[in-house]
Amino acid sequence: MPNTTGNATGNSAGNNARSYALLEQRFREIGDLGHAQAMLGWDEAVMMPVGGGERRGDVLATLAGLVHRQITSTETGDLIAAAADEGGLDDWQQANLREIERRRVRATALPADLVVEHSRASTRCEQTWRVARAANDWAAIVEPLGRLLELTREVAVALGEACELAPYDALIDRYQPGVDQASIDPIFAELRAFLPDFAESVIASRPRPLPIRGLFPRAQQEALARALMEKVGFDFAHGRLDTSHHPFCGGDPDDTRITTRYDENDYLSSLMGVLHETGHAMYEQGLPKQWRGLPVGDASGMAVHESQSLLMEMQVCRGRDFLEFAAPIVRAHFGAPDAAPEWGADNLYLASTQVSRSLIRVDADEVTYPLHVILRYELERALIGGDLSVRDVPDAWDEKMRHYLGRPTRGDDRDGCMQDVHWYAGLFGYFPTYTLGAVIAAQLFAAVRARVPDAAAAIRRGDFAPLLAWLRANVHGRARSVSANQLLLDATGAPLGTAAFKAHLVARYGA
Amino acid sequence: MPNTTGNATGNSAGNNARSYALLEQRFREIGDLGHAQAMLGWDEAVMMPVGGGERRGDVLATLAGLVHRQITSTETGDLIAAAADEGGLDDWQQANLREIERRRVRATALPADLVVEHSRASTRCEQTWRVARAANDWAAIVEPLGRLLELTREVAVALGEACELAPYDALIDRYQPGVDQASIDPIFAELRAFLPDFAESVIASRPRPLPIRGLFPRAQQEALARALMEKVGFDFAHGRLDTSHHPFCGGDPDDTRITTRYDENDYLSSLMGVLHETGHAMYEQGLPKQWRGLPVGDASGMAVHESQSLLMEMQVCRGRDFLEFAAPIVRAHFGAPDAAPEWGADNLYLASTQVSRSLIRVDADEVTYPLHVILRYELERALIGGDLSVRDVPDAWDEKMRHYLGRPTRGDDRDGCMQDVHWYAGLFGYFPTYTLGAVIAAQLFAAVRARVPDAAAAIRRGDFAPLLAWLRANVHGRARSVSANQLLLDATGAPLGTAAFKAHLVARYGA
Repeated sequence: MPNTTGNATGNSAGNNARSYALLEQRFREIGDLGHAQAMLGWDEAVMMPVGGGERRGDVLATLAGLVHRQITSTETGDLIAAAADEGGLDDWQQANLREIERRRVRATALPADLVVEHSRASTRCEQTWRVARAANDWAAIVEPLGRLLELTREVAVALGEACELAPYDALIDRYQPGVDQASIDPIFAELRAFLPDFAESVIASRPRPLPIRGLFPRAQQEALARALMEKVGFDFAHGRLDTSHHPFCGGDPDDTRITTRYDENDYLSSLMGVLHETGHAMYEQGLPKQWRGLPVGDASGMAVHESQSLLMEMQVCRGRDFLEFAAPIVRAHFGAPDAAPEWGADNLYLASTQVSRSLIRVDADEVTYPLHVILRYELERALIGGDLSVRDVPDAWDEKMRHYLGRPTRGDDRDGCMQDVHWYAGLFGYFPTYTLGAVIAAQLFAAVRARVPDAAAAIRRGDFAPLLAWLRANVHGRARSVSANQLLLDATGAPLGTAAFKAHLVARYGA
Repeated sequence: MPNTTGNATGNSAGNNARSYALLEQRFREIGDLGHAQAMLGWDEAVMMPVGGGERRGDVLATLAGLVHRQITSTETGDLIAAAADEGGLDDWQQANLREIERRRVRATALPADLVVEHSRASTRCEQTWRVARAANDWAAIVEPLGRLLELTREVAVALGEACELAPYDALIDRYQPGVDQASIDPIFAELRAFLPDFAESVIASRPRPLPIRGLFPRAQQEALARALMEKVGFDFAHGRLDTSHHPFCGGDPDDTRITTRYDENDYLSSLMGVLHETGHAMYEQGLPKQWRGLPVGDASGMAVHESQSLLMEMQVCRGRDFLEFAAPIVRAHFGAPDAAPEWGADNLYLASTQVSRSLIRVDADEVTYPLHVILRYELERALIGGDLSVRDVPDAWDEKMRHYLGRPTRGDDRDGCMQDVHWYAGLFGYFPTYTLGAVIAAQLFAAVRARVPDAAAAIRRGDFAPLLAWLRANVHGRARSVSANQLLLDATGAPLGTAAFKAHLVARYGA
């Protein structure tokens, strides 16, 4: 308890902002519960034996309920009102108050029984999906998905009314505040116009890499991953690398935990996966320490988060500069001969930049990935808006896959509209953040190269400090003190646009 | 939240016991916070990177504060009073209400500022101890230990007043309810009279085992430990084995996590350590599921807990029946020849039952261990009672070590009175539970052999089901529904006594 008290007034604004100081103390406590939720969530995915699941579910529900009760309590409402009246707050404190209010508005917008019903329906739908997907049985999921969609619409309408947003915008806003259909549509329209033909020409012309035969033992892959994580700037005193079925970045900023899985026939996909999660992790590790656990100290949102993972993976680590530096380290870890052409930087670069028409989003390369996302964006918007019925999803999916990627999926819903967990877990509005992240990543990295002349050459030498310093100052360290749009404008001098992303693709893959 | 609601009325007594049902719901939530504390504590010791410590400390303090607030709240007090009035409770519900009240009395007994001051003083003292112990510098610890002792006395007096117990009894009661100096003194007096001479004669006469040369690779030790854990009944669907600096048993009953450390020169000490923790873990795993998270569903106390680890380690696994079964499994894991005498059951038994005059409690065997504990009991009682000053502890320690074990410690406080963390962390009253556990273990195991005629032969065959079934019915499944004394009386037909423990030592080590 002494520690909490010590922290609670760390950012407080003195006696003329007593209510604000009390509010901060309250939200630090909520942040501490968030730490417990994050760590128990990591543990569930990485450590927990199967028999611990039921109790863990109860505990996580209790923690969520406690957080919800604290945020929606009358006392919290009174403190917010009093803090807004008393004034005397600096910019960060004002931003913190705004983010606190944002959390409260969203928490109070939903009736408790709707939250419970939605949670039950998504648990049921996700569980049905696991079985139905394996059996390629779309019919089995229609009813539970229909019910979940109906409740998600109710959530969207209620949130939209509270936040003065259209229903689907209210869902997007949960994952990336400040982004809506009006800002997404022009971006996606430009990509929709550019990418299909571009992908086709790249696929037709890009040389194939020389194959590397043999097994890549798990222990060597892990040692390589750790070595490169450390090189690019991951702080192992404040984080871990572990194994899980689905790779993710969890934990909290002081203790950021990423996971991967290993395929002993293919070291590159795991390595790039680790570097992707490392990008997420370094964002977390760079959030401002004095705002730890408070709403303004959180990452900006999922689109900006994805920009950090994709900046690291796509812009940096699949690029020539990095691979020139990394190739000898890769060879050393697998005991490969320096002179072998298949182990050289040229071939590593080719292997890291292949483009193909995958059915599966998570296997897609950076050229085709946005088409997978745009397809999902169009369909989920129609689903939420009532313009598409659940029953018609497989046909709509097939039609769009033919159109965007020339890959029919009729009869193969497992690798079509049932491939991703998102909808079946109720996460409508999440998909766009992936491609917004890719676009933001390109725009940020273009700014780094323009403003830090040595950054690219430093990467080729294995010196990531100039890049990291820029990201710390322009992205990580700003947390939620400004909107994502403002952050991008300040960092790059321009609003969100596709120019840098398209220029990056053309530079890497040819016109 | 649906899960919590579902559980909350699981044991409730219907409409005529509404307050009790609400109280149960409240304490299930407190139990869920306890799960978070337990898992974050495990994580801190086993997984957490060093940089995560500060934040973890804050989070654990917040959780402790939340639990304390919930237990001491007016609403909780009102519900306890109303539940006691409304009646209609069955035996377990009455015991649960009694345990709830017990927690509340102890939580409200201590003024908040005393709790904070004591917590600060023990953190400071433990940190000083880490340095001072390494430097064998007793003078450095005198002031912080004196301050901590003073505050511990205040705690003991306040708790004693609230619980109508003498101050030192109030401290013991924190670790094992229902045990006090009046019940400990005759037990320890008998051991004090019996053990020094007995130990001397065993040390003089016991043959030494044949040495085993070579290294025992960590991976093989771990595989062996897992194999034997599973054999004796540890449920890996509800638990884990990991590595930590100090072995312990943590987690919760649905997910019980034990740790060990490995010495590649000595497989036996790690293996016996694992089997010790497995005894603790199987107690947790056997607690009644329908009372999960509620006070009556907890283990009886630390003495009964230690009886389960020592029953497994000392009574079962260092015994002939078990070692006949285990010897071929040990050989198979280390690739040792079946015919080699040093790998045979006879030699394994000798190696597992050596007796010596160790300076160090945690290295002591079952014959001399109680003397280490009795020494600490006598000194800490005198410290709390004001009959011994901190400054005089090294001399008193040296004198008792000469007397009980013939080992002077003058000038070597590192391996004398500074060897254990307990006092420096403020844990006065804990030590007696170790030896009470040993005595209870012998009494319980004698009852098993008397009442389950096949139990010993089954162990020799590697069948632990009869033993486990008896423990589940007579110890584990009873949780806190009865006092430790009643539990022992029901299970063995006799109150706590040293007869079975002495008979065990005589049978194993000779008269």
